[in-house]
Amino acid sequence: MRPPRRNFKLTIAYDGTRFGGWQRQPHRITIQESVEAALAKLAGQPVTVHGSGRTDAGVHARAQVASCSLETSLSALTIRRALNANLPEEIRVVRVQPVASDFHARFSARGKEYRYQIDCGPVADPFRLRYAWHHPRPLDVAAMRRAARVLAGRHDFTAFCAKSERDPVRTIHRVSVMRHGSLVTIAVCADGFLYKMVRTIVGALVKVGEGGLTAADVARLLRERKRIPLVETAPAKGLWLWRVRYGAPGTRRTR
Amino acid sequence: MRPPRRNFKLTIAYDGTRFGGWQRQPHRITIQESVEAALAKLAGQPVTVHGSGRTDAGVHARAQVASCSLETSLSALTIRRALNANLPEEIRVVRVQPVASDFHARFSARGKEYRYQIDCGPVADPFRLRYAWHHPRPLDVAAMRRAARVLAGRHDFTAFCAKSERDPVRTIHRVSVMRHGSLVTIAVCADGFLYKMVRTIVGALVKVGEGGLTAADVARLLRERKRIPLVETAPAKGLWLWRVRYGAPGTRRTR
Repeated sequence: MRPPRRNFKLTIAYDGTRFGGWQRQPHRITIQESVEAALAKLAGQPVTVHGSGRTDAGVHARAQVASCSLETSLSALTIRRALNANLPEEIRVVRVQPVASDFHARFSARGKEYRYQIDCGPVADPFRLRYAWHHPRPLDVAAMRRAARVLAGRHDFTAFCAKSERDPVRTIHRVSVMRHGSLVTIAVCADGFLYKMVRTIVGALVKVGEGGLTAADVARLLRERKRIPLVETAPAKGLWLWRVRYGAPGTRRTR
Repeated sequence: MRPPRRNFKLTIAYDGTRFGGWQRQPHRITIQESVEAALAKLAGQPVTVHGSGRTDAGVHARAQVASCSLETSLSALTIRRALNANLPEEIRVVRVQPVASDFHARFSARGKEYRYQIDCGPVADPFRLRYAWHHPRPLDVAAMRRAARVLAGRHDFTAFCAKSERDPVRTIHRVSVMRHGSLVTIAVCADGFLYKMVRTIVGALVKVGEGGLTAADVARLLRERKRIPLVETAPAKGLWLWRVRYGAPGTRRTR
């Protein structure tokens, strides 16, 4: 008798340093491919996982979410243990949960939080080398917070995106700029993100922190919907997919 | 005219993962050798640095201290910048200070603090992989604290050392066991340390935390001055040289 087919939600943490990002691609090892290989070993057949979204090469995840369907009677804890035994140690399945059959990591997601770490110490902290952008010039955090408030809300984010998109409108719920010692962390919560949107927002806010742009300039960028070269894309290594938010079971996003 | 000969105190942070420890040795790149190479480039001649003590392969330092003498008129900030430009990025000179000619990183040291990180989560945190020992079984932190109190004071630490030493008596000022979420940190402050002493103390305290030893057993080990196989040496990657304490300028340790 075949075991029942069940749907699972996987919460995955990874150090993205040596991977080519989440999504399968030729020539580079990716997170998706590594998780699918571990699942295939468990299931004895190919398994597709759906991530909540892509992360770029070098980007980290504290809690990426993926879903997959498996014919198995194994418990969630046993599945977690088996997957971790077959994964590279920089990728860890933190949690496995059985979910309703209509749960889909991408389509059920209501929103996400990304965080970006900036090491502002005069000398780079060797323990943050892989996880933060070293930016030794002083940053005016109060000015960055004023500009961050301008970004919150429903806007066309074309000026903060690295390629043209069909639907460039997103709702940012919150942009926070936090400082702890020499570490500045920027957290962005939104219903969805355009390509390289967080890293472009970080590039703009850092420019504000340096005094090269004002909150009014950021408002103008939003209005004019045109990317300017002054706003750089911050490096991938400082970016973390922090959490993915889902609604009540059985509800899909309708945006 | 030759520039004046001056004595400097260097504070150095390093991620020890890929190094063969502090001290020069054949066949492996070490921290001392890397710092000396950067100094030689700056000075145009070979320079010897004296560390406050050795750290083993894979051990990290938040604030190792070293001293050296240089014929230079350069400012401390310029020296720091030049050294960091010539060092691998996992080694950073955090601070350069001109000091009295009798300052010596090893002989002037009054004491040190080491910290040891244990990741007690059921699944290893991929971001602590290089910096903590993953120990997924639960630890009784209260029992570890009771045993830690037994170790404080002036004792013969032969039972907590990986090789026989001529003078195995040291004074431990404090052993603290701290818990933050799934991270347990053990801090040990002492006037000096025997070979692998912290990692052996950590091995013993973890055994206490698992219920395999009691505080009374630890007291007996101290008294009997004999190492037992039950006490393992904790892995190097969880160990951090946290700080080195010096007395007032011009005073040398007399222990």
